[in-house]
Amino acid sequence: MSKYTIGVDFGTLSGRAVLVNVETGDEVAVSTYEYPHAVMDTTLPDGTRLGQDWALEHPQDYLDVFAHTIPDVLKQSGISPDDVIGLGTDFTACTVLPVKADGTPLCFMEQYKSNPHAYVKLWKHHAAQDKANRLNEIAEKMGEDWLARYGGKISSEWMFPKLWQLLEEAPEIYEEMDYFVEAADWVIWQLTGVQTRNSCTAGYKAIWHKQKGYPSKEFFGALDPRLANVVEDKLNCPISPLGQKAGELTEAAAKWTGLKPGTAVAVGNVDAHVCVPAVKIDGAAKMLAIMGTSTCHMLLGTEEHTVPGMCGVVEDGILPGFFGYEAGQSCVGDHFAWFVDNCLPASYYEEAKAQNMNIHRYLREKAEKLAPGQSGLVALDWWNGNRSVLVDVDLTGMILGMTLQTKPEEIYRALIEATAYGTRKIIETFRSSGVPVEEFYAAGGIAEKDPMTMQIYADVINMPIHISGSSQGPALGSAIFGAVAAGSARGGYDHIFEASHAMGKLKDVVYYPIPENVAVYDQLYAEYSILHDYFGRGANDVMKRLKDIKKQAAQ
Amino acid sequence: MSKYTIGVDFGTLSGRAVLVNVETGDEVAVSTYEYPHAVMDTTLPDGTRLGQDWALEHPQDYLDVFAHTIPDVLKQSGISPDDVIGLGTDFTACTVLPVKADGTPLCFMEQYKSNPHAYVKLWKHHAAQDKANRLNEIAEKMGEDWLARYGGKISSEWMFPKLWQLLEEAPEIYEEMDYFVEAADWVIWQLTGVQTRNSCTAGYKAIWHKQKGYPSKEFFGALDPRLANVVEDKLNCPISPLGQKAGELTEAAAKWTGLKPGTAVAVGNVDAHVCVPAVKIDGAAKMLAIMGTSTCHMLLGTEEHTVPGMCGVVEDGILPGFFGYEAGQSCVGDHFAWFVDNCLPASYYEEAKAQNMNIHRYLREKAEKLAPGQSGLVALDWWNGNRSVLVDVDLTGMILGMTLQTKPEEIYRALIEATAYGTRKIIETFRSSGVPVEEFYAAGGIAEKDPMTMQIYADVINMPIHISGSSQGPALGSAIFGAVAAGSARGGYDHIFEASHAMGKLKDVVYYPIPENVAVYDQLYAEYSILHDYFGRGANDVMKRLKDIKKQAAQ
Repeated sequence: MSKYTIGVDFGTLSGRAVLVNVETGDEVAVSTYEYPHAVMDTTLPDGTRLGQDWALEHPQDYLDVFAHTIPDVLKQSGISPDDVIGLGTDFTACTVLPVKADGTPLCFMEQYKSNPHAYVKLWKHHAAQDKANRLNEIAEKMGEDWLARYGGKISSEWMFPKLWQLLEEAPEIYEEMDYFVEAADWVIWQLTGVQTRNSCTAGYKAIWHKQKGYPSKEFFGALDPRLANVVEDKLNCPISPLGQKAGELTEAAAKWTGLKPGTAVAVGNVDAHVCVPAVKIDGAAKMLAIMGTSTCHMLLGTEEHTVPGMCGVVEDGILPGFFGYEAGQSCVGDHFAWFVDNCLPASYYEEAKAQNMNIHRYLREKAEKLAPGQSGLVALDWWNGNRSVLVDVDLTGMILGMTLQTKPEEIYRALIEATAYGTRKIIETFRSSGVPVEEFYAAGGIAEKDPMTMQIYADVINMPIHISGSSQGPALGSAIFGAVAAGSARGGYDHIFEASHAMGKLKDVVYYPIPENVAVYDQLYAEYSILHDYFGRGANDVMKRLKDIKKQAAQ
Repeated sequence: MSKYTIGVDFGTLSGRAVLVNVETGDEVAVSTYEYPHAVMDTTLPDGTRLGQDWALEHPQDYLDVFAHTIPDVLKQSGISPDDVIGLGTDFTACTVLPVKADGTPLCFMEQYKSNPHAYVKLWKHHAAQDKANRLNEIAEKMGEDWLARYGGKISSEWMFPKLWQLLEEAPEIYEEMDYFVEAADWVIWQLTGVQTRNSCTAGYKAIWHKQKGYPSKEFFGALDPRLANVVEDKLNCPISPLGQKAGELTEAAAKWTGLKPGTAVAVGNVDAHVCVPAVKIDGAAKMLAIMGTSTCHMLLGTEEHTVPGMCGVVEDGILPGFFGYEAGQSCVGDHFAWFVDNCLPASYYEEAKAQNMNIHRYLREKAEKLAPGQSGLVALDWWNGNRSVLVDVDLTGMILGMTLQTKPEEIYRALIEATAYGTRKIIETFRSSGVPVEEFYAAGGIAEKDPMTMQIYADVINMPIHISGSSQGPALGSAIFGAVAAGSARGGYDHIFEASHAMGKLKDVVYYPIPENVAVYDQLYAEYSILHDYFGRGANDVMKRLKDIKKQAAQ
């Protein structure tokens, strides 16, 4: 009898479960559940107004995902709970909430229902930017050695800026909570009754290091004396490497999900990181790019290096036994969508309509016919700042080379090429910092659906590109971790690589670099690099000055 | 009884006559005639194929303009030819043709009808670029002092590159012709029976200097030994300052036109230059910008200075008694048209349609609401290269500051602002070279129809802008010169300034700079200047390298 595991992927607006055959990796059933509260960015359920840049969620929605999707995939597939040996999950991060010692979220308590700080702060809650700025300043002044591991900057999206905001604005919540916990870990706690934190979010989002632990009391005390003991007071919990079992399903959780009590549950994980085994990556120097509106890059290394401007390096942070490096581009598909929404002329829509063709496809057909370099254009892919290498949200987009003959498809292609140059810049920065990159894998919507873009990427980075075989990468990855949590004794696997080899999936298609294109893109990338450094490294801070002028103009 | 003059403006595709009251400047009647042969850029009338970048016209079309439009304005107005005291004309330049000693164009002769070189080479005939390049090289090598007067470069559009091309490709035409003459002067010759050349085209287009004459035999001989005597052989004719009478209407010309024999005819002139008196400019330091698809700048000075990258300085070249300076921007309205054609999204067209509004007006209404600096964008106005200051056709457009929130109207406004910065750069270059600019006048389609753009220009250059009162600027200017050719004895004027004061026209509206906008644009212009110098003066020749890559890609 075949065995199965379930992966549950918690996204920004919904959760999705997939039931996977442990032997073959076949995805037998999928079920999605949209969060009833969605993202709360203007009011709480009771009408309490939220400030600017807030983004909250309701933890009940996460429990409801389990209660709806797991019974549904069981029902759809007709698989018996007896044959479901493990469960894995992945989450957005840093998505955090204050809870009591028994795991009860403070927002479940009547007296805190109207307090925004009692809810889950979603990854894109950006109201703690001033805290992040002060934290970075103080860390730099104190010469904190961990700062270099995060490319020199802690993001406002991460745990401590959010926690510090909570302390300042709602000290009563700070006082009342026993833990401030990643939702990734909180859902595991709800399933197993055991609190354990995963090394991935602890490392990438909470400045934790396998050998050195968290930053010092002195550092936290310098932020605010009340924070000096924050680790002991609010984060006091063991940290488990990825690939471990967190625990087993409780009787209660078995009831909501329809699974058997005792089913193995993997430690929590993060949506991007969990995709790595889903594309069969089994070691160092193989980069995975998850390409959508933005791109996340995941890379394993055998040594810890400081890489300028990377999002973080964490031991066991992606797969156990390796240093996991994370990088990212904050605007990829978003560039192309911006272009189509704001720059594509009516005549193109009319012509596409006349040919009964989707506008994106129409545009792509025109852009595909262009040879590399033919447009005479080069762009900097900074419409949403630069997340890796330069780490500067105040950088903006640039394009040059336009003439009166320049066509929309040339600009569109130049934007695609710019994001490919951005990826090459990240790869080269890893390499020059001692972290090899020898293979390249891509997942996500663009990798699946856009062969032109993938060929451009292959030509620009001069590496073959392997494509994820599943459109449910994160959920499949979670199911793979679920199989490792179960272990071979229960019909799963003892090591993540075995599971990944059996259950991970790649498409047959590989995009190979075309030598004559590579030669042209080498020249264009050299131009990109000159402009990247000129505008990005302080020679001409015009982008920042324009932002300042813009702010004044808006007043 | 009122007296009248007629101005005839020869454009690229048609000629236009306007009948003007000498006392009031009232434009009593207008008539336009389209050239039957239009611009010949692929074949001659007999089917002979033309090369790439050729642009020819047929001189018979010019004579037909007189024969159609002058009788028409007389008829429309009911004015008696007795009361028409003078005639002035203006032409595109450098627009040149080979003729016999009696003025007969070679293309009128049966044996040369199929020879493209026998026809008029229009200003935008660009097939002599290699000649221009060689000429500039040789002039620089020989240290020719006149080169500096033209900003260091002779354009392929000007007389000697076109003449040299003719010699090389059709030596039999070179041999056969007695003169190579500007169409501006040829039409005057046809009207009066007298060949005289105007100081404007001689100075700006044929490297003539009031004191120093043409370049030396040594120079022409260095181009080609057969050219050593080109001035004596093919250009041998007196040169008259603007504002003079060329002669009087012959019996024959009186017959075609319906005017009286003996009517005074002014020396030929150029379309942009002739506009200066039409806006009442009467002395130094008053700049006129004629703003359309591209912009021409006209400026009078009391001294001869070398101004980097200007199109030329010619004594008596605009108005008698002054040094006339010419500058230009090769792409102004063309930028905005490119944007509307290539970048304006379908949603804007739909919304404009729903509001029953012209798309340009719809876009302008949105752009008008933006405060200076609010877009966060800055652009370089080089979609068609840079004609003045840098004089570099290989420069291309650039825009920076885009974010995912950037709207089409912000880009549109940034392009307008960029052309205003380009104008300020020209003004500042004049000033720093010792040529004052104290007042600013604008004519042409944009000046007439686009208050938002004119306000932006006033704010960017920090000067009030006076607007031409006539939409027939060149024809009115020609009529003004016609009144001076007639002189006071016949009811006209003895000096161009008297005529200009009486007949020139300005609108009541003046665009005054708004101090708070000026302050913001000062900051933005500083950014423009840094980028202008970085990309335009050799620090980063990326635009040229991209053009090279583009050329390779097209092969």
